[in-house]
Amino acid sequence: MTHYHRQIVYQIFPERFAIGQPHDSRSKLAQAPYQRQRAVRRAWDEPVLGSGAPDPGDVFYGGDLQGVIDRLSYLSELGATTLYFTPLFEAPSNHKYDALSFDRIDPMFGDEAVFRQLLEGARGQGIGVVLDAALNHVSDRHPWFLAARRGEHPYRDWFTFVDRDTGVELTTDDPAELEAASYLCWWGYRHMAELKLDAPELQDILYRRDGSVLQRFLDMGIQGWRFDTAQDIGLPFVRRMRATLHPLHPRAELLGELMNHPGDWIGEDRFTGVMNYYQRAAVLGWLSGDVGARQSNAALWDGYVGCGHAGSLSSWNMLASHDTPRLKHMLPDWTDRQLALTAQFTLPGIPVIYYGEENGMEGAADPDCRRPMEWREDRWDMATRDFYRRLIDLRQAHPALWQGKLTVLGDRLDGTDALVFLRHTGQPGESALVVLNRSGQPFKASLLLPDPHLYSGLCLRDAVGEGKAEPLMGGQTRVEVPARAAAVFLPDDRRPDFKYFKARNRWD
Amino acid sequence: MTHYHRQIVYQIFPERFAIGQPHDSRSKLAQAPYQRQRAVRRAWDEPVLGSGAPDPGDVFYGGDLQGVIDRLSYLSELGATTLYFTPLFEAPSNHKYDALSFDRIDPMFGDEAVFRQLLEGARGQGIGVVLDAALNHVSDRHPWFLAARRGEHPYRDWFTFVDRDTGVELTTDDPAELEAASYLCWWGYRHMAELKLDAPELQDILYRRDGSVLQRFLDMGIQGWRFDTAQDIGLPFVRRMRATLHPLHPRAELLGELMNHPGDWIGEDRFTGVMNYYQRAAVLGWLSGDVGARQSNAALWDGYVGCGHAGSLSSWNMLASHDTPRLKHMLPDWTDRQLALTAQFTLPGIPVIYYGEENGMEGAADPDCRRPMEWREDRWDMATRDFYRRLIDLRQAHPALWQGKLTVLGDRLDGTDALVFLRHTGQPGESALVVLNRSGQPFKASLLLPDPHLYSGLCLRDAVGEGKAEPLMGGQTRVEVPARAAAVFLPDDRRPDFKYFKARNRWD
Repeated sequence: MTHYHRQIVYQIFPERFAIGQPHDSRSKLAQAPYQRQRAVRRAWDEPVLGSGAPDPGDVFYGGDLQGVIDRLSYLSELGATTLYFTPLFEAPSNHKYDALSFDRIDPMFGDEAVFRQLLEGARGQGIGVVLDAALNHVSDRHPWFLAARRGEHPYRDWFTFVDRDTGVELTTDDPAELEAASYLCWWGYRHMAELKLDAPELQDILYRRDGSVLQRFLDMGIQGWRFDTAQDIGLPFVRRMRATLHPLHPRAELLGELMNHPGDWIGEDRFTGVMNYYQRAAVLGWLSGDVGARQSNAALWDGYVGCGHAGSLSSWNMLASHDTPRLKHMLPDWTDRQLALTAQFTLPGIPVIYYGEENGMEGAADPDCRRPMEWREDRWDMATRDFYRRLIDLRQAHPALWQGKLTVLGDRLDGTDALVFLRHTGQPGESALVVLNRSGQPFKASLLLPDPHLYSGLCLRDAVGEGKAEPLMGGQTRVEVPARAAAVFLPDDRRPDFKYFKARNRWD
Repeated sequence: MTHYHRQIVYQIFPERFAIGQPHDSRSKLAQAPYQRQRAVRRAWDEPVLGSGAPDPGDVFYGGDLQGVIDRLSYLSELGATTLYFTPLFEAPSNHKYDALSFDRIDPMFGDEAVFRQLLEGARGQGIGVVLDAALNHVSDRHPWFLAARRGEHPYRDWFTFVDRDTGVELTTDDPAELEAASYLCWWGYRHMAELKLDAPELQDILYRRDGSVLQRFLDMGIQGWRFDTAQDIGLPFVRRMRATLHPLHPRAELLGELMNHPGDWIGEDRFTGVMNYYQRAAVLGWLSGDVGARQSNAALWDGYVGCGHAGSLSSWNMLASHDTPRLKHMLPDWTDRQLALTAQFTLPGIPVIYYGEENGMEGAADPDCRRPMEWREDRWDMATRDFYRRLIDLRQAHPALWQGKLTVLGDRLDGTDALVFLRHTGQPGESALVVLNRSGQPFKASLLLPDPHLYSGLCLRDAVGEGKAEPLMGGQTRVEVPARAAAVFLPDDRRPDFKYFKARNRWD
């Protein structure tokens, strides 16, 4: 398997990635699961918007796990090392965040046998799998919730029923009163009833006992879990869960979906990493003009400190997901997107490619960002595709980019509109200086580089663009990067008669 | 007693706070202690300035400890949890920093019995007492100094006699030579002869032996000592003193009067906190236009780091004292004062109210800042008084404000003239975002908030003014605060069917 920190994650929303052989839209959507009430069935090339469904979660295209198996070589050729799937468990909606079960693969997607084939097939290509644990809530049609509403124990204790008017929690077991009551539900969505995760039996079922939800799939060979709505699950639950799973699966990735600053959430007794939405906010806020460069640079540093170094390298660098508009929608300008993507692949953390982003797919906020994958190559944006390939190659070739420490320099510069940072592993030759210049003026600055292996006399060359840097002297170099351009400066030790980076200068 | 960090300190300059029953000015000032040579006696409503005294320390109004006892309910109703008294020991001057004794309460103020009644009465209202230890020097009429000048041991070794012309220290014990000699005295004030604090017998008397000055009053039940001119006392003395007192009185507050950066002065083996004049300089320098917002924000951070988190929470946030002009003199503009006061009550540390500030008393530098307390309510500035009450209530209601960590954000913003900082305890719901906008333009900025418990979707509401903030997303919010206004944004978790801050998300 790929080194933990060297991953390229590819996010799949299974209902929208691909329909597996031998089906097409028509034959797939003719299957029983799609005949349920309110389901809207669409052909792969029909638009998501204007589907006529009052709830976009009821619109189905028929994507499934066999479709992913069929496209494994596509994913491998792109450079993906890890597939992250939004939930696979049985649920009424297309997104499956309203679980009816934590055991059964949704029949729309396949069954456990197909899932095992997928795992096996992916492993054959050196690709790991991360699943989505949406433990905070279940469907209001989940058997647990229905039983709870009938006052049956232990289920009754797994949900919070409240008085409709006062919001005060009810202790009654009376079915009529419970039927009339309200209940805590995720962000007020009635079809997602929140679980009381501190209930001991529930913890047994979810992670603690042999064969529990989280253990069963780790035993099966998945690489880790991504935890939906981590902020709601809460840290005490995460700590107990990690403490239970760590001895059993010490290398398992347990990542929180965290849409705020990651401090406190990562550590040896917490998540191994987060979906780094904080980093995304810093980068996109800056490129969209909302956040000044100084604040954005400072926020990148805050995020790095919040995750810690190891936690940063294990966290996911997000630009788009099923919960956000696609990058092309966020940043219509191609240069802005290049700057964003260069940040994603050069900042500490594992880049996540939301399916189709690599081909420049478009889409506004949910549900538009969940369009079926565009498989017609003539509709692909090849410039975007080439740019991804180059960034993936660059990152994989340079340990500075996938395991280097971060030092932010951009917040100490005046009169520039650039993110400027160093990555450095502490080994000679493993350094990178990144300058992302959003300004319409060239970036010109004399930079002092606090990197103990950027030796005097060394030249830096820009591996991605037209940036220029004078030879280092006293740790200082004068850098010039064209207007609206990125530069990734790497040390250039190509002299025939002298080596700056001597083998004897490497740490053991 | 109030939690250490939750205190509101009220500073009393006893000679000027209140004359206790049954006396009025006339009967009080007719007492023997006020008949001494050079004493100028004034009625309570006579001005301090223009008293005709060559030394303002010779002007007396007759305030005493009984006066404080009589006003305990006033102090309690205001919200004071702690009274800090400038020195109470017998001394010629009105300020008593020129001690004649470290044992005897000055007869102008009362006696030990009255002091014990005060302690008792204060305790009954939940109010603690901090005394002033002015150990660096004594009066030139102190028996120790007189004996030293006669060449008597051990007193001779407690002072530094120097040659008048060369400044070289003299070793002589000869009374005539000592009489002719000069001696080290505080800032050159001849009537305050500096003690050689490394003399072992002196250390025994001051803090080390059973019944020593510092121990005796801690045994009596005072909450702590404030150390005058901490810079002169020196760190080695402070460390030995703390090491001696800590096992005996582990909760005692030992605060240094420090008029410089607090780094090095606070710690487990040093002071528990300081009078934070560094913070005062940062805030008032900014509001008076001397210091730019970026530097002021950065200096607040430096001060916090210098004190450490625990040391910051235990230090005193000063705006005015007996050694500075009153706030109204420093900042004639009411909005500027509101910004300063909001800073004082929302930055880490314990707010100190110098007597009368709560009613908007006026006064320039010493001696004008030491006017007798204004007790005529029709002379009170009720807007100021209401503002203090609201700030006290706000601070006491929100743990973020009295025990939260500090993150400064204002130094990363361009084009604003605002102090911007976060307070956050690490517990869900215990966060506050403070924006103090000095500018004549509204403050508008998109802010990334590095707080791991400001969850996505959460709304922030301004608890003190008209500030507006968009719901958080990715740790980011867009904030608007009117021109020349303060905002204290607190998380607003008031939904009937969903809780952002779940009980299960609190740390144990």
